[in-house]
Amino acid sequence: MAGAARASLNRGLAVVGLGGAAAVTFMLQNAYNSSADCTAENAPNLKTTLSSTINIEDLDPAAVSDTSKPMSERMTTYVRLVQKKLVESIQGLENTGSASGSPAQFLVESWKRKEGGEGISCVLQDGIIFEKAGVNVSVVYGNLPSAAIRQMSADHDGILQKLGYNVGGDDADVDALPFFATGVSTVIHPLNPYAPTGHMNLRYFEIRHPRTLKNGQVNPRYTKNEPAAWWFGGGCDLTPNYLIPEDARYFHEQIKSSLEMQDPAFYPAWKKWCDKYFWIVHRKESRGVGGVFFDDLTLPSWSKGKKSFIPLYNGEKSVDTQLVGAKQHDENTLFEAVQAVGNTFIPAYLTIVQRRKDLLFNHFNKDWQRLRRGRYAEFNLVYDRGTKFGLQTPGARMESILMSLPPQATWKYMDAISGTGREQSEAATKFSIEQDRAFPPEEVEARRKMQATLENPQQWV
Amino acid sequence: MAGAARASLNRGLAVVGLGGAAAVTFMLQNAYNSSADCTAENAPNLKTTLSSTINIEDLDPAAVSDTSKPMSERMTTYVRLVQKKLVESIQGLENTGSASGSPAQFLVESWKRKEGGEGISCVLQDGIIFEKAGVNVSVVYGNLPSAAIRQMSADHDGILQKLGYNVGGDDADVDALPFFATGVSTVIHPLNPYAPTGHMNLRYFEIRHPRTLKNGQVNPRYTKNEPAAWWFGGGCDLTPNYLIPEDARYFHEQIKSSLEMQDPAFYPAWKKWCDKYFWIVHRKESRGVGGVFFDDLTLPSWSKGKKSFIPLYNGEKSVDTQLVGAKQHDENTLFEAVQAVGNTFIPAYLTIVQRRKDLLFNHFNKDWQRLRRGRYAEFNLVYDRGTKFGLQTPGARMESILMSLPPQATWKYMDAISGTGREQSEAATKFSIEQDRAFPPEEVEARRKMQATLENPQQWV
Repeated sequence: MAGAARASLNRGLAVVGLGGAAAVTFMLQNAYNSSADCTAENAPNLKTTLSSTINIEDLDPAAVSDTSKPMSERMTTYVRLVQKKLVESIQGLENTGSASGSPAQFLVESWKRKEGGEGISCVLQDGIIFEKAGVNVSVVYGNLPSAAIRQMSADHDGILQKLGYNVGGDDADVDALPFFATGVSTVIHPLNPYAPTGHMNLRYFEIRHPRTLKNGQVNPRYTKNEPAAWWFGGGCDLTPNYLIPEDARYFHEQIKSSLEMQDPAFYPAWKKWCDKYFWIVHRKESRGVGGVFFDDLTLPSWSKGKKSFIPLYNGEKSVDTQLVGAKQHDENTLFEAVQAVGNTFIPAYLTIVQRRKDLLFNHFNKDWQRLRRGRYAEFNLVYDRGTKFGLQTPGARMESILMSLPPQATWKYMDAISGTGREQSEAATKFSIEQDRAFPPEEVEARRKMQATLENPQQWV
Repeated sequence: MAGAARASLNRGLAVVGLGGAAAVTFMLQNAYNSSADCTAENAPNLKTTLSSTINIEDLDPAAVSDTSKPMSERMTTYVRLVQKKLVESIQGLENTGSASGSPAQFLVESWKRKEGGEGISCVLQDGIIFEKAGVNVSVVYGNLPSAAIRQMSADHDGILQKLGYNVGGDDADVDALPFFATGVSTVIHPLNPYAPTGHMNLRYFEIRHPRTLKNGQVNPRYTKNEPAAWWFGGGCDLTPNYLIPEDARYFHEQIKSSLEMQDPAFYPAWKKWCDKYFWIVHRKESRGVGGVFFDDLTLPSWSKGKKSFIPLYNGEKSVDTQLVGAKQHDENTLFEAVQAVGNTFIPAYLTIVQRRKDLLFNHFNKDWQRLRRGRYAEFNLVYDRGTKFGLQTPGARMESILMSLPPQATWKYMDAISGTGREQSEAATKFSIEQDRAFPPEEVEARRKMQATLENPQQWV
């Protein structure tokens, strides 16, 4: 697959995302608008192929750690292995829940676009343990004009300058630059209100040197398999409905300790960035209890001289999320850090689901879960960069992008516990009094505890 | 209220919106960022006052048609009367559904902001006829810098030029211009899946001449009660879950015939604009069966010489939505057209609810309703200008803006009937076969008929 993807570079582009798959998607809109040979809106996608298992016969798992292979192939291999592992682990847990012996099954849909680009979307719906679980992989490629390049990375402003090409305009070296992107995304909504929603995304981008320049001459900077720029992005986070501090702590501990083996600077910076990214501004609360989030993870050579500095940028030029590495990295150690997130998320998250999947719950608990999931939908539709820009991308596979949306969500006006601005609302006061009469006190207390934590993100380790 | 609002012009601003309340909200963010005396983020709103009825003792209903009064006062009076009428009509219908004699009640919350601006938010939740009904009124005012003025009207590009002031910058006449906005918004979600969701919004904007210019001199253009620019915006539309053509036809007929009395050019242009505005781009379907939508409705004097031309602009400079009026208007006849929409919506919509509220329904019908309401949430969170920019506005009353969100929503991956891209999906084919086995054929047929209409908006009259 990676080979095929490389071979068809510049032929077109496709996109699939899931909460957090940020820049993979946005650039494509501009790319569509600008490349004359792009007929995305006219050419429908090909019919998908459907299976209940993920076929990795075309993959060589050894490629992940084979430093002689290009990173595009290594990362594509890795994300597909992660997808397989995750789908099999979720399915395994779902199978244990079925007394009938016919548990809900993942649907594995492989899709290709005529113009290039492919992906595998895996979805399990209406399970006994999992209400909805989506695991997507996509490989996308094409040509990016300058406006799209500027949107690609979290460091919007700096990327073109760093690339050193004059892209587009009157005295341009080139009209557009070839790019490659691959990633895996997952959002998992368990049925039990005490089992948290989980999310992970890992992605890799390359901007490549064009073979020829606009004036027709061979590009002296062109080298096969040597990108002009590359970076990783990703992260994982936890969204409980009820705060179980030991789960939040366990999740953060697992990620922190696996990242500490890579670089002690990673976890603290990426934990902060995660809290910033998943902040629902209009609600003044976080989507969940966080985890890690990172973007623009690349070699320090871009920063010209500051060898220990890895440029990280959260879109606000805040020093909080700048990462001063404790050690010097190369592409292999950075890739290992990305793998640490993927490899840790799967057992850490599923251990928590395993712990909570059989807890007793009542209709109060389900009501609150649906209300919290309304907030999840709000975050993903309003703020998530991957979702937002995916929706604006003609030809994107919408059902894969929107897989992250919860199976059920509710909205209530001025809920006594989670209503925004409830402190100034007489309606919220009235609802609160009614609720104190009708609800078990421990339910009110548990909801309040969760809400307080969302409004004041904590240090878990 | 209108008097108080005028008196406190320039003291600050507040905002409340509902699906469709477009430009009322966005400008405020920039206004906040730019006015030095504005401390919105630090000053919390005052505690609201709560009631179950709307008090209009402070209003003189005769002001609506009193041409000697400023339009700001006439429109504010009108929107408050519309709110009262709508709330009482909905409550009346809800009361008929209650066998117990204790029907769900509207909560009427009046709020003010310290810095100026006020509103009344009315919400009924968990009724027998209405799952959720919200009716908002707000009056907002303040000072707008040039960037915000440009966002105010649908004709983003033209408005500053038309105003004739040089706002902001080195050789500016003024740093900002005073504005005034008032409007009513409603979204009504009935419980019965055969009763459609209804939406209406009516709004009025003024940009006013500042008393003094930046150089300290008296502004020669300043005249009390004579705005620099003013316009109306609004519309109403219907979102059924099941297509009942006679309902869609009846709704459109009622609006069309009431607008024809004003100007035969209104309905055809505003119907087209409505279909454009409520198009869910990423789904390739409409939110519902439409109605009318308009913005920038003002006097033709702006168009300098073309007396019969009323500048209307949908943001894409499409000629489709330009309105060539069949007759010459003044502010009174335009205001009458706005009132025609408001006065027609209430009985037209509630007649349809009355017809459908007691139809038998089953769990298939409720499931489909929740799925359709997921799309409603998608539109409002992703596209609706009023909602989108309201969410970005510090100090906005979020629970009033988000009142439009459905009480319950679901999302399914690749639904056999409404899944986006289902034609290319083997998963959708599989779901379709399963559905044909498990669902009553008339349910499948009814869902398909609705979906086909959403994907191909029709002429209803």
